[in-house]
Amino acid sequence: MKAALMYGAGDVRVETVPNPTIQEPTDAIVRIVAGCICGSDLWPYASKEASDEGARMGHEFVGIVEELGSETSGLSVGDFVIAPFVASDGTCDFCLEGLQTSCRHGAHWGGTEDGGQGEFARVPQASGTLVVVPADFDEALIPSLLSLSDVMSTGYHAAKKASIEPGQTVTVIGDGAVGLSAVIAAKLMGASRIILMGRHEARTDLGREFGATDVVAERGDEGIARVKELTGGDGTHVVLEAVGLLSALETAIGVVRDGGVISRVGAPQFAEVPLGFSEFMRNITLTGGVAPARAYIDELLLLVLDGTIDPGRVFDRTVGIDEVPAGYRAMADREALKVLVRP
Amino acid sequence: MKAALMYGAGDVRVETVPNPTIQEPTDAIVRIVAGCICGSDLWPYASKEASDEGARMGHEFVGIVEELGSETSGLSVGDFVIAPFVASDGTCDFCLEGLQTSCRHGAHWGGTEDGGQGEFARVPQASGTLVVVPADFDEALIPSLLSLSDVMSTGYHAAKKASIEPGQTVTVIGDGAVGLSAVIAAKLMGASRIILMGRHEARTDLGREFGATDVVAERGDEGIARVKELTGGDGTHVVLEAVGLLSALETAIGVVRDGGVISRVGAPQFAEVPLGFSEFMRNITLTGGVAPARAYIDELLLLVLDGTIDPGRVFDRTVGIDEVPAGYRAMADREALKVLVRP
Repeated sequence: MKAALMYGAGDVRVETVPNPTIQEPTDAIVRIVAGCICGSDLWPYASKEASDEGARMGHEFVGIVEELGSETSGLSVGDFVIAPFVASDGTCDFCLEGLQTSCRHGAHWGGTEDGGQGEFARVPQASGTLVVVPADFDEALIPSLLSLSDVMSTGYHAAKKASIEPGQTVTVIGDGAVGLSAVIAAKLMGASRIILMGRHEARTDLGREFGATDVVAERGDEGIARVKELTGGDGTHVVLEAVGLLSALETAIGVVRDGGVISRVGAPQFAEVPLGFSEFMRNITLTGGVAPARAYIDELLLLVLDGTIDPGRVFDRTVGIDEVPAGYRAMADREALKVLVRP
Repeated sequence: MKAALMYGAGDVRVETVPNPTIQEPTDAIVRIVAGCICGSDLWPYASKEASDEGARMGHEFVGIVEELGSETSGLSVGDFVIAPFVASDGTCDFCLEGLQTSCRHGAHWGGTEDGGQGEFARVPQASGTLVVVPADFDEALIPSLLSLSDVMSTGYHAAKKASIEPGQTVTVIGDGAVGLSAVIAAKLMGASRIILMGRHEARTDLGREFGATDVVAERGDEGIARVKELTGGDGTHVVLEAVGLLSALETAIGVVRDGGVISRVGAPQFAEVPLGFSEFMRNITLTGGVAPARAYIDELLLLVLDGTIDPGRVFDRTVGIDEVPAGYRAMADREALKVLVRP
């Protein structure tokens, strides 16, 4: 089968690799119908050291169950399934608490394992990991179903960890696919005002359609001043940080209201957070983290199927498997917001 | 009247200062029945630069209303009142939300204003600030009533911000008066296991009486290993950090379970918090901050009056106003846990 491998910064190749096979009785083999390129794939695409060994790429996909190990249940060959970006057993204490990213038998896609940017994938802990989509759904929903693998669930995680209450004000930092999904999530949870900080007009326009009431294009101190101006000088009750750079977190601290919550879902590209004495005096909470997408797919799936949300609109380009390298370039160059791959 | 002033590190003097008078119609004058020395007073006692101008000290007191401004309500001359460590109007949005430390008309004790280590104090925003104790209470309860000014309310704030649920496991870092109060709070909220990290046996013994199920005297990596050993390798759901040093926060990160909450009430003596990528992957939340004691006094007062809690036991020494300098020395030398002042 064909699959995408990354050999170093800017070096993604599509190669023929062995088809996956069942290795553990809890495995499934899925034929991938749609995968995609993630904003987080752009970090190694920008900085990964060159290597002779390529790393398999992609951690988001939907597809059809081709084969099942002997110890799987709740799945049938032919099921259309959504794979969250971390595999989990569904039975350990962390999974039962909804923190599948800390599953005691969890597994990640890519690297030396199959990724989502390929034709097939072996799915470990298949019964805990995969979510079956009811048959006869509209194929036009595939991008939205795919978004539940990661970005929509990640945006929702940010909002859930912040415990947004109806009527609260929210700032979303970042107009990438996760930031836009966070806008959808904030609206779902009843935010009265959603200020989207981003400077790419096509993206912020989509953000407005998703529910953003205001857009702030300025960054840094200017951006902070603008959000404060919009909120009577106080900032917002909640900030959803969907970038992962220190500057974004500093902005979050600047725009959050006293007693408020910063919920971060951008993977931090820094080791230390400036939450010292003055933030202590303001009772600022920092929460969030990597999203246990599996915890949210069941409920978000219903909202996709009934048309309440349409997060698949974050995909603005579709490529075949051979065009994955071009897809990376388009996302890195900000020509595409998020690239869907149909192998 | 007599009052304590700090002129620099190690230099506390008791001097005669003018008696306070009503300055705003929202003021009250309170004759202090009991004040105390706070762990946080020890930071300037250790490091304050020498100055010709002394700073008034103390931010915790109970006493009797002597005089009321024309725009006060709900208070009568002769009432026995508890003063939380920040004054607040009780009517602004932050006060109504229970974040009186961010009150739009808030005020602090000490410095150029009256402090709690003196014979009288002018109380700004008296109607919002003071809590009346029902008449005819047992005077033996005065230490516990005084603890509601700060330490008990601060320990409770830590537990409330962590949203401890019945059955959860909790680590309390620090065996000072706030840490011990946090033990009481964790028990009130139904923690099934409370691990107290502290090395002063008299204090940790009191912690056990307050509800600690385990005591860990080790610090640093050794302390972390011990807590992990006690919790099957996972750490605890909640960590209440009552020290304020970076090493304590690092310990908190080390002993908190994935998905858990660190709630800090020790005033941070550092500017940056090591919450980078690995803590992000573990979904660690950092919350807490300066405690809006006023928000908790009403409910905690009932628990003191009915004997459910006895936080006044953290006071292990009582001095007169002239002995306040000796009280500082005793606390700094760890001879006393917390010193009560009867002016």
